[in-house]
Amino acid sequence: MSAPRVGVIGGGQLARMLQPAAINLGIELKVLAKSDGESAAQVIPNQVIGSHEDWDDLSKFAADCDVITFDHEHVPLEFLTQLQESGNSIQPGPHALKYAQNKLEMRKKLSETGIPCPVWKEITDDSQIDNFANEVGYPFVLKSAKGGYDGKGVWVVSNQAEAKVAVSEIKNSGSEVLAEQLVTFTRELSAQVARSPHGQSVAYPVVQSTQTDGICHEVIAPCPDLSDERAVQAQEIALQIAKKLDVTGMLAVELFDTGSQILVNELAMRPHNSGHWSMDGAVTSQFENHLRAILDWPLGSPAASAPFTVMVNLLGKDVGNLHGAFRHVMARDPAIKVHLYGKEVRPGRKIGHINISGDNMEDLLARAWHAADYLTGVIEE
Amino acid sequence: MSAPRVGVIGGGQLARMLQPAAINLGIELKVLAKSDGESAAQVIPNQVIGSHEDWDDLSKFAADCDVITFDHEHVPLEFLTQLQESGNSIQPGPHALKYAQNKLEMRKKLSETGIPCPVWKEITDDSQIDNFANEVGYPFVLKSAKGGYDGKGVWVVSNQAEAKVAVSEIKNSGSEVLAEQLVTFTRELSAQVARSPHGQSVAYPVVQSTQTDGICHEVIAPCPDLSDERAVQAQEIALQIAKKLDVTGMLAVELFDTGSQILVNELAMRPHNSGHWSMDGAVTSQFENHLRAILDWPLGSPAASAPFTVMVNLLGKDVGNLHGAFRHVMARDPAIKVHLYGKEVRPGRKIGHINISGDNMEDLLARAWHAADYLTGVIEE
Repeated sequence: MSAPRVGVIGGGQLARMLQPAAINLGIELKVLAKSDGESAAQVIPNQVIGSHEDWDDLSKFAADCDVITFDHEHVPLEFLTQLQESGNSIQPGPHALKYAQNKLEMRKKLSETGIPCPVWKEITDDSQIDNFANEVGYPFVLKSAKGGYDGKGVWVVSNQAEAKVAVSEIKNSGSEVLAEQLVTFTRELSAQVARSPHGQSVAYPVVQSTQTDGICHEVIAPCPDLSDERAVQAQEIALQIAKKLDVTGMLAVELFDTGSQILVNELAMRPHNSGHWSMDGAVTSQFENHLRAILDWPLGSPAASAPFTVMVNLLGKDVGNLHGAFRHVMARDPAIKVHLYGKEVRPGRKIGHINISGDNMEDLLARAWHAADYLTGVIEE
Repeated sequence: MSAPRVGVIGGGQLARMLQPAAINLGIELKVLAKSDGESAAQVIPNQVIGSHEDWDDLSKFAADCDVITFDHEHVPLEFLTQLQESGNSIQPGPHALKYAQNKLEMRKKLSETGIPCPVWKEITDDSQIDNFANEVGYPFVLKSAKGGYDGKGVWVVSNQAEAKVAVSEIKNSGSEVLAEQLVTFTRELSAQVARSPHGQSVAYPVVQSTQTDGICHEVIAPCPDLSDERAVQAQEIALQIAKKLDVTGMLAVELFDTGSQILVNELAMRPHNSGHWSMDGAVTSQFENHLRAILDWPLGSPAASAPFTVMVNLLGKDVGNLHGAFRHVMARDPAIKVHLYGKEVRPGRKIGHINISGDNMEDLLARAWHAADYLTGVIEE
């Protein structure tokens, strides 16, 4: 069959969730994981245990892969460039990933390209804080250009003193400092597209994503009460970013909907939490389309397969063993889809998610949240 | 999380297709395979290479599994009984599997239970051939009680001389001989149920299954133009068999529809080719419900998630490498779901299947068959 071998750098749940799609498509995955107990290493036989920050581990891992892709965005760009120069196919390539690794580079590029962003400025010197505050008012946002995700590396500052502390912390961590307007939004959207190296692209239905403390909690697909015009605008923004930044594989564009406009918040160049609904609610899941895209295979239909799908994350709380509650949840609702990542439960950690599809959004929300709250111990018997 | 560990004896495509469901549910699979290149061993890290006919391999394999189940029905019953007596949970148990391993035992049990079967008789002596021929007429069917599947071990005989040859061959192979009426059917149905050790059962929509040379080629779910009454009757037969034979996990009951009645043809106590449509066309696939059932977890909804799903098998022909055609098929129809088993192409071998869901059955059939024929080289560019 000469099945292609896809190397995935990183052993988290996104790599794990590529494996069902790979099995169906007859693709062999190989994973670079920190340990054989990591989420993806539990389910992918071909594995190298090592670090994505170690050149020897990376080059050994990459040697016999047809394509290399990622579970996360933290591989040093210089290593990826070296791999590429040695003839490895890196998807997405380092020239695209740099915009996912550095929020300042991302803002510069998007603004150049005419993509709507919040007001932003690089802060290289404390003296610029007052100028920026005069422009957008307090509170505003300070971000570490590098290394932040799930709300880490982000400060909301209410005065000059707080701003100075944040700027100093970010600089001390070795990153540039990005200041952004604090956008007053009515809700957050996510627009996902898949794009292949030769340029075929498909856009998923735009979803509504709800975050708490910077962590995604709930997704509704498609976004309720979104005008066709706004939905198409969000899809066009995502398609344009994918093209201009030459992204391959899945791209998630997180957007603020202010009521009167939409502004780009963050980018992720990989399967994304806001697309987990597609595992049970779309003709082709984001994981399948990521694999098809990076292999330059024709893409699958991103259409929803049900009127609504609701996704709720399972975030670890105090309950260490979910399996007792798991049975209750399955018994109560035979249509619920539980996805577990094989991770030890720690407070606040993403350990799984719930999907449920159907016609009645309110009903689906109630059922998904009951299942999630019961599993994580928010509701007790 | 204390995820349960499920041992699967046999490394074929059915074991392989359990893995996506196991990954989602956070279940660890362990497989007993003949080689690490076997279909399931390619995708399940925890593997023992050995034989299901070797006691040492089996007992070593079984030692640390919470539940043991099967990719096929060929494990010697005495070994399964020994494993059970050593405290292993075998699902389905040997007391049920004996009816799947021996067609004569199956016919005796079903007839005792009042389940409608073709006219049948055990042939222990050539003199019984004429009596049976007088009862049902030529041609009739002679089957090896043990070891047959996909049409192997089955003879259709047209006269006494042919019957004697078949009886002699079957006896020489070490099996009892089962004679059956050749049923004139208008179509074949399959009724699948999942049943858990404590007795919870769910019935899938009854499907139409089309075989050629004893091998399943096409499945339409649900079966078109089947009266509700007949569909419920088929489901009740399957539920009753599962209960009376104490089957756990998935049970497939293959049925002849003669137009005026339905008669049981064969049983399979595992996920079955006639249920592959459920991977893309049901709320809960047969693979997920098999795992939930054998673990005595609450079962998932077996409801169809689309008006129709069509499944067409990919049977190996002369084309050794499917990947060129694969791209064409994906490009032509973005809604097609291709499932490949990672097996070398050999003529007549099941190497994968196509699923497609939608509203218009004729359209789905045309698209699924085009994809299958193109992939296997029946249609050439």
